[in-house]
Order: sequence, then C-alpha cells, then structure tokens
Amino acid sequence: MGTPVFGPNSVEPDGAGNPGAAPSALTALRFDGETLFALDQTVLPWQERELALRDATEVAAAIKRLSIRGAPLIGVAAAYGVVLELARESTHGALERAVATLIAARPTAVNLAWAVQRVHAAASAAEAGAAPHATADALVGAAMNEARAIHAEEEAASDAMAALGADLLSGARRLLTHCNTGALAAPGRGTALAVVAELAVRGRLDHVLVTESRPLLQGARLTSYELHRLGIEHTLLVDSAAAGMLARGEAGAVILGCDRVAANGDVANKVGTYALALAARAAGVPFVVVGPTSTIDPDCPTGQDIEIEERDGDEVRCVAGHPMVVPHTRARNPAFDVTPAELITALVTERAVVSPLNRASLAALLAARP
Amino acid sequence: MGTPVFGPNSVEPDGAGNPGAAPSALTALRFDGETLFALDQTVLPWQERELALRDATEVAAAIKRLSIRGAPLIGVAAAYGVVLELARESTHGALERAVATLIAARPTAVNLAWAVQRVHAAASAAEAGAAPHATADALVGAAMNEARAIHAEEEAASDAMAALGADLLSGARRLLTHCNTGALAAPGRGTALAVVAELAVRGRLDHVLVTESRPLLQGARLTSYELHRLGIEHTLLVDSAAAGMLARGEAGAVILGCDRVAANGDVANKVGTYALALAARAAGVPFVVVGPTSTIDPDCPTGQDIEIEERDGDEVRCVAGHPMVVPHTRARNPAFDVTPAELITALVTERAVVSPLNRASLAALLAARP
Repeated sequence: MGTPVFGPNSVEPDGAGNPGAAPSALTALRFDGETLFALDQTVLPWQERELALRDATEVAAAIKRLSIRGAPLIGVAAAYGVVLELARESTHGALERAVATLIAARPTAVNLAWAVQRVHAAASAAEAGAAPHATADALVGAAMNEARAIHAEEEAASDAMAALGADLLSGARRLLTHCNTGALAAPGRGTALAVVAELAVRGRLDHVLVTESRPLLQGARLTSYELHRLGIEHTLLVDSAAAGMLARGEAGAVILGCDRVAANGDVANKVGTYALALAARAAGVPFVVVGPTSTIDPDCPTGQDIEIEERDGDEVRCVAGHPMVVPHTRARNPAFDVTPAELITALVTERAVVSPLNRASLAALLAARP
Repeated sequence: MGTPVFGPNSVEPDGAGNPGAAPSALTALRFDGETLFALDQTVLPWQERELALRDATEVAAAIKRLSIRGAPLIGVAAAYGVVLELARESTHGALERAVATLIAARPTAVNLAWAVQRVHAAASAAEAGAAPHATADALVGAAMNEARAIHAEEEAASDAMAALGADLLSGARRLLTHCNTGALAAPGRGTALAVVAELAVRGRLDHVLVTESRPLLQGARLTSYELHRLGIEHTLLVDSAAAGMLARGEAGAVILGCDRVAANGDVANKVGTYALALAARAAGVPFVVVGPTSTIDPDCPTGQDIEIEERDGDEVRCVAGHPMVVPHTRARNPAFDVTPAELITALVTERAVVSPLNRASLAALLAARP
C-alpha cells in the first residue's frame, strides 16, 4: 500500500498562507534513488500527504487506486517501479515480473506500457552487455538512468506543449477543461493545464471553466486545487452543464488531455470527453487535445481498438464514500471514452501541433522523431 | 418547512419485502382537504418520509428545495398551495399573495404558473359570481375543485402519454433516460418513465440506462428507486458516460421529460439534456421528449427566451453534504439547459405525438385543444 508520510508541498489548500507569495511547484512524484514518493491524489484537496513506495507491487497498487494518475505521470511512476523492483532483486525474473505487474495496473493509457518497456529494454541491454560479476549493478544502473531520462523528457515535453498550445490558443481567453491535466497528471506543469498556465503567464487568459469529472471528481478536487495554487480564475461546473455553457458562448475553446491516441487520431480520454467534443463542434469552438508523443500508440489502428477500462461500480454508486442508490443497484463505470479524430481541432504534442488530426498527419509527426 | 410524518409508502427501499408482491404505487402527493402530504424527495432513497404542508409558503419552500419536484408535480402541488392559503384566509388579498409566492418558487417550469393561474382564475370567477355572504366558501370550493381537476387531468395525461410513447418506442427495447420523470415527477406514473413502465408492462423493454443526474442525483436516487420498485432492469451511469454508451449502441433511444417547451419546440429540461440530444443525433438513435401540454408555453417564442434557474453553487461544490473542493471555489449551477427543436425526434404529449417538432406542429397541437 505504501506508507503515508507528510510531504513537502507546503501551500495550504485554503489559501490562508501569504497571499503575496508565489505558489511552490507541486511535486506529484519524486524519487530519491531508493524510494518513490507520490502525492496521494485520492485524498486531495483535503490532505496533502505523500506515499512512500518501495517496490513494483506498491507502485502498481497506487496507480490502480488512482493515488497516482494521469497518463504521463503513471508512465514515469511505472518506470521508477521497475527500478525499485530491480534494486530489491536484480534478476531477469524480477524484471519480467515487475513489467507484468505494472503494465496490468491500468489498461487504457499507453504511456504506462511504453515507459515500462523502455526501462525493460535498457535493463536487458545492460544485462546482455555487462561482465557476469557486474550484472546486478549494471541492470539497476541502466534502469535508473532510463527512468530518469523518461522523467526529464516528459518534463521538457510539458514545457514544449505549454508553449505550442499557448501560441495556438492565444485568442481564446476563456477556456473549458475536463478532468485534471496539470502537475498532478504529468511531469512539469502537465499537459492541457500547462497550456492554461502558460496562457496565464502570458496575460492571455481570463477564466477557466472546470468540469467536476465524475465519478472521482478529478476536476473538482484536483484541477480547482491546482488553479487555486496558480492564482488562475476558475469556475466549477457539473459535467453535464458544459454543453449548455459552450452553446451560450461561455468558452472560446475546450482544452484537455488524452490517455491514448490511436494511429488514425481517435483519442481515448477521461469519460465525458466525447460529449464535450460534440458540444464544442455544435458551438463552433476549437476542441484541442494536449499530450506527449508517448501517448500516441501507432500499433493501435483506431479508437475502436483501444481497451476501455471499466472500474468498480461503487465509484458510481457512492459519492465520497456515501451510497446514493438503493442497495444492489447495477452500475457501469467506463473510465474513458473515445472521441473520433474528425471532432478534434488539433493535437498539441511536444514536437508540433497536429491539425487536422488523421492517420497521415500523425504518421508524419512520428516519422519526424528527433 | 412542513412537518415530517411517516408516510404510507410501505415498500422497503432495500427490496427486502415479499419479492412476489406487486409494488404499491408511489404516492408523491396527496391532499386530504386540509393538508397537502408530499413525499420528501430530498431524503429518498434513504428515507421514505412525508411532509405535511399547510399553507402556500410551506408548499413554495418545499418546491424550492426540491422536496417536491418534476414540472407536472410542482404544478399540482402549487395548485393545492393556493387552496391551502384560501382555506386559512379566503380573501382576494390572500389569493394574490399565494399566487405570487408560489410562482416565485421556481422560474423555469411553466406548469407551476399555469396551474396556479388556473386556480386563481377559478377562484376569482367564483368570487365574482357568489352572493356576498357566500364568498369565502365559494372561493375555497372553486379553488379546491380546480386543483383536484388539474390533478386528475395530469394523472389521465400520464396514462395517455404512456400509451402513445410506448406505441412510438415499441422497437427500442433498450432505453437511456435522464433525471427523474416517474411517479415522483408527475401525477400518475409520470412522463417519460410512464412510457418506460408501459413498455415493461407490454413486454417490450429489456433494459434502462439511468444517468445519475448531478448535482442532486435525481437519476441515481429517484429513478433507480422507482425502477427498482417496478422491477425493471436498469444500470446506473455517471452523466458523462452516456454519450460513449450511445456511440457504442447500448441504447436504442433516449427518452426524458421537459420543464418547458417554447413555441418553436425548443425544450428546457434538466441540465445535461442538450448533451444527450447531441449524442443521440451522433449515434443515430431517436431522442424523445415526453411532457403534458401544460408544459408547453406558447407565449415563449424560443428556447433563448426561457429563464434558466441558477441554483446555489453549494449543490456543485458539495456532494451529500461534503465539500469536494478547496474553500471559496466559485461554481455555477444552471439547473436546466435548452435543446433546440431540430435535435428532438418527437414530443409525446397526452394528446398526440408531435414529430417533427417545430412552431407549426406545436401550434397545430395546441389549436386542437379538446
């Protein structure tokens, strides 16, 4: 389960601190070489507490219960999960077990498998190349270097997406966003919320409409919390109020993240994304998806081929632990939905803005791999 | 506030009663000539308790806090509210005050003003026609007769809508519905849920998908409860999961109620209705609105002219009384949205099914007033 410890994120969630002080950066994940510390996102915004994770099983469990969430962030966490496991037992068997455990934690986001496989490949190459007596150190060292590289790359990707997305949306001024795509979802400043933050820094943002994002309320709990820390004006809505708000011209664009982009440009993202895409199209406002290229899965032909995780029905039946329905009510809880590429105005990656989004434009982006 | 009393609705919400017994009909409202008893919908499904309401102010407060809700049901309750006030003080001044108090309770549903004005007109006519010493009795008697007539007409309307709607949707077998439109929302079996119940009686229904309907969860709390009592198979979803479900062919039609229909056929209904209409159009399934003609407002030209009630932001910030956000988070809480007539496949009223729905077809329906 990981041990809760009090973390270094010192800004009070009630904003009672020094109002003139710039907010400290949120540290959703940090690795000290022996332990992975993760801000427990299931208890935000009420508590800021860190989990101390010491092996792949603990990391996988934290990902599964959404203590760590957001496609890029779970990729980085899982990469460190492989390192933790190898540090305990630096064998090929341990490596394979860690990979399997971590990939099984959540099926939809492709970053998880991508990051784990990168660390696996680096460790395997080191194992093959090392002298017999040096195998263990070589394995751990190579894995750790690769995990740190992924982490650093995703941080740089966040900055690049922020700049490209802010250039794209510099005239929108009022945005609507869904779920949480900030520093709690991806290294650095996040994905879509990094663009929002960058627009604010540039003085080109007036307001953000935030959907609460049932069932687990990542918009209400996490995005409001991040925007509050950043000092960005925002207003919370229930998810189903967004379409009417867009129809009334309350936002100039919709901006959100993605959990997996298929080769044809279809996007799997937090449940509710597809309805927002339909509403944006009807309102005639841009619908912009932001995510690093690690989110693109060229091996997945279309959105129909993406496995959609169905989570426990209790997340729907209960709110904040309280049952809202008569006992034994059946519930379905798809965590994601699929938005067809033709509804997406642009995909902002760290390399380029892809628009229109389709099989050819995505292939061209990936072919230009640096 | 009205006094809570234990009510006559004896079916246990946990379904622990005699499984072979037919469920007793839900009595959302009953009037014994002196007191209006209303099942308190804010505490369902956890408690089945009745409020005893004795004047117009108590009825208006119960409507405002949604203890009594559903456009047709608040119309009937408000009609009895006028009667209650006149029974206390049968003067013209009391009549005018009761009318003003009740109409101010909620602005969007037109049935409320329609029903109150019908009782007002009946009482005024009686006042004008009565001998001086008989004025008080004549006022109360005329008001009571009119309120009972409205109640009976809306019950008959429910049966008529159920039959017409079931004829229309006899091939759908799997339906998706939003908010609550059953016996808790309208006299008799309700509006859209009366159609659902009738399809079940006819053996032409397999399953109902129920959206939870944030912020106050009328779908989760009330529709699941009603379908459970009726023994109809159903599955609960978060609101934003509905669009993806429709895209995957999980429902053959969407069916829901309405709070006001403008003269051009635009419909104001529970927030989230518009997003469902867009999703139904994209999925190519019928989008059917059910409501009595009392819901049609010929004096309201289009949906843009309908006043949309904005309720307290705490309904969004809190779930089941628990705050979900950092303190001082701003929230907007429109209770309704507007769906353009062109997205609506058919409007089922007690007189006829109107399809296509537009200014001309609605005018023809109203011109054929029996």
